[in-house]
Amino acid sequence: MEPKDRAKEELERLEAVAGNGLLGRRAFLRGGAAFTAAVTGYTLARSAGAAPLTDDPWSLVPGAISPPYEQRSRFEGKVVRTLSNPKGETRTSHARTPHQLINGTFTPNGLHFTIVHSGTPDIDPDKHRLVIHGLVKRPLAFTLDALARYPMVSRMTFVECGGNSAPMFSKEPIQASVQALHGLASCAEWTGVPLSTLLEETGIDPKAKWLVAEGADSLALSRSVPLTKALDDAMIALYQNGERLMPGNGYPMRLLLPGWEGNMNVKFLRRLKLVEAPAMSYYETRTYSQLLPGGKAYRFYFLQEVKSFITHPSPGLALKGPGYYEISGIAYSGNGRISKVMVSADGGQSWAQAALQAPVLSKAFTRFRMPWRWDGGPAVLQSRAWDEAGNVQPTRAQFVAQRGETHKVPNVLAFPNQHYNSLTSWAIDGKGEVKHVYA
Amino acid sequence: MEPKDRAKEELERLEAVAGNGLLGRRAFLRGGAAFTAAVTGYTLARSAGAAPLTDDPWSLVPGAISPPYEQRSRFEGKVVRTLSNPKGETRTSHARTPHQLINGTFTPNGLHFTIVHSGTPDIDPDKHRLVIHGLVKRPLAFTLDALARYPMVSRMTFVECGGNSAPMFSKEPIQASVQALHGLASCAEWTGVPLSTLLEETGIDPKAKWLVAEGADSLALSRSVPLTKALDDAMIALYQNGERLMPGNGYPMRLLLPGWEGNMNVKFLRRLKLVEAPAMSYYETRTYSQLLPGGKAYRFYFLQEVKSFITHPSPGLALKGPGYYEISGIAYSGNGRISKVMVSADGGQSWAQAALQAPVLSKAFTRFRMPWRWDGGPAVLQSRAWDEAGNVQPTRAQFVAQRGETHKVPNVLAFPNQHYNSLTSWAIDGKGEVKHVYA
Repeated sequence: MEPKDRAKEELERLEAVAGNGLLGRRAFLRGGAAFTAAVTGYTLARSAGAAPLTDDPWSLVPGAISPPYEQRSRFEGKVVRTLSNPKGETRTSHARTPHQLINGTFTPNGLHFTIVHSGTPDIDPDKHRLVIHGLVKRPLAFTLDALARYPMVSRMTFVECGGNSAPMFSKEPIQASVQALHGLASCAEWTGVPLSTLLEETGIDPKAKWLVAEGADSLALSRSVPLTKALDDAMIALYQNGERLMPGNGYPMRLLLPGWEGNMNVKFLRRLKLVEAPAMSYYETRTYSQLLPGGKAYRFYFLQEVKSFITHPSPGLALKGPGYYEISGIAYSGNGRISKVMVSADGGQSWAQAALQAPVLSKAFTRFRMPWRWDGGPAVLQSRAWDEAGNVQPTRAQFVAQRGETHKVPNVLAFPNQHYNSLTSWAIDGKGEVKHVYA
Repeated sequence: MEPKDRAKEELERLEAVAGNGLLGRRAFLRGGAAFTAAVTGYTLARSAGAAPLTDDPWSLVPGAISPPYEQRSRFEGKVVRTLSNPKGETRTSHARTPHQLINGTFTPNGLHFTIVHSGTPDIDPDKHRLVIHGLVKRPLAFTLDALARYPMVSRMTFVECGGNSAPMFSKEPIQASVQALHGLASCAEWTGVPLSTLLEETGIDPKAKWLVAEGADSLALSRSVPLTKALDDAMIALYQNGERLMPGNGYPMRLLLPGWEGNMNVKFLRRLKLVEAPAMSYYETRTYSQLLPGGKAYRFYFLQEVKSFITHPSPGLALKGPGYYEISGIAYSGNGRISKVMVSADGGQSWAQAALQAPVLSKAFTRFRMPWRWDGGPAVLQSRAWDEAGNVQPTRAQFVAQRGETHKVPNVLAFPNQHYNSLTSWAIDGKGEVKHVYA
């Protein structure tokens, strides 16, 4: 056996943690350059020994003036949200986060997903009011200036549309990017006033059990929220990643219900009415009443359950030759912290535990990472997440049995299209191309 | 005694934690509306009982189309960085973070501070290379594509210019905003490849003790970094708050040295040369060699020490009548986590411990918050921070004795202007106006 082959065999034995090339977290560092050479036959970087340093054109002239508000490089113009309604026709508009083109644990404000049903209103913050009324001891109207004086909190949390991942209800895997499949979930640091504080101010009539939240968009979108959630971790969010909310995220204020269906996190929030029973508003009775196999439907299914998906590699990000890669992705749960993410490179035959990027925060995106040596052959990558409450992402078979698939039946207008949280599988072919498969 | 007065006296006794109105963290919630009324004589919000809800103009028409990259509301145009060199003359350009206009624990990318000495280069990321050479076993050149295959890490960390807070070396307090005084510090989540991983790839000649980092700006800014820091927590940062680095923050890559002088976090990074001794480059021998009283100077003073300042209220954010306010600000230390922040409302005669926003992360901004009841009289607000290594922000007297003040002496060109980390004091007058004072 050649020394190189011996080194390779030894490293494989030491470092393999699951089938088809999944490696222990320290694999790369323990081997260093020798490891890379042994495993890939070449290093990822080119030798710089013979190449003298030359100045690029931008190193020869003074650069641009610093602007008051920094903008992205012109070379990043392709890193954008995809739009479902770019001409602003009279229907819902989705703008999806390009998870495959960003990295880290949360979403920059320009790329946070948004859904608006009648466009984004142009609200003058000095004239906007939040009214809390109904079954309260004294109804109150809050300006932004008034809210600025209350105790604030900041928290990282994801927001996810109940319809995120809906293309995966299809009987056949739809060929699409992770942005198209899972782009209706994002994560940010939100800062604002706990709703419980404002309800202390208004007082609560003991008969109140729900509140109806209404936006100042022209649709006056409204949703019913149990009072228990309002008094738990609900927030009137005023800042998104440090600055005022983006227009599409509800400027100048939104209701934030960590871990609950995006649509309930009412944007452009203008009133909260405390009531005895839910209002049975349009969105809660139609779109977000999840139809189940057999024709029954969930009523008030609010929680965004434990989910994960791999962002790197993913469709559109082809592998460039065999060798070392980092598999990474996002996991989150409306129930709390992510406790574990397992990754498979062989379609679920064997699994290895991924590293979780600290800090792992409740109801926030958690970035997971796993070293992988691609041998150039077929592979099917999957991730599966667990949360601290003991919930686990269901397999596709488990999920479909319980929740159904999309099927076009004559005279049936509704079909299952909400709260999909099963596994996502990416198949790698011999050329390194990535496809969406069910595995 | 009237019932209202009795309630007020009781609340004061229960909740006061230090002089001049500092309150326990639970003060607001324990009292609710009754508390507010007793203490302020009126609620912060207006009664909404008699005011019927009316539609604002933006609620009557469909809103705007969602853009591919979301932009701020037009009403936020005044939330900008202040520029020291808006015309881009041939000198250094500072763009300062408006801490008084943002909230939360980190800085949105558009408002992260930047300093460039010869403008911001317009770098084509596909042509940019990072070369590691000098005392290595094999010199290597890394493209962005090559770096994308290495194991990455994300971390929240602040970057602060060594010259941040320099106006406070003045013998008299300069009347300026928190942005003008402390706007050369910001915090972001940075994602990239640990430098130690790349040095495993190149190998290290045992003679190497330092590395010289050089940027691709037309100045070719360079700084010497001890190899120990490079092998500790240094990172080649590729992403800032999820998206690619902003141009002014070093696009497409920068050296990140958590907790160390901003200037050393070399932007537009194009090479790292491993060497036996520091290069004694321009910035490390001139600007960042801190002059001390007596004429001696620090050599290689890299650490950004423990610091805090109050952002709300602060000059320009006048108080609007007596009553409840939240005092909040930022604390950080290059040594690790913030362990404690104390706040005073009486110029340092008495102190109370502020709440720290979780998660408290090493070498990152930590937001502190403290409830305060302003009685309408004079007040002097201060904050003082401790870090987990046991360091404490020095008083101004302690600081000046050790580091000196700015004094204009004939024929002396240099004066102390780096690494200021003493307390900041805001005086409130009877009208609620906020002034910078030394107290």
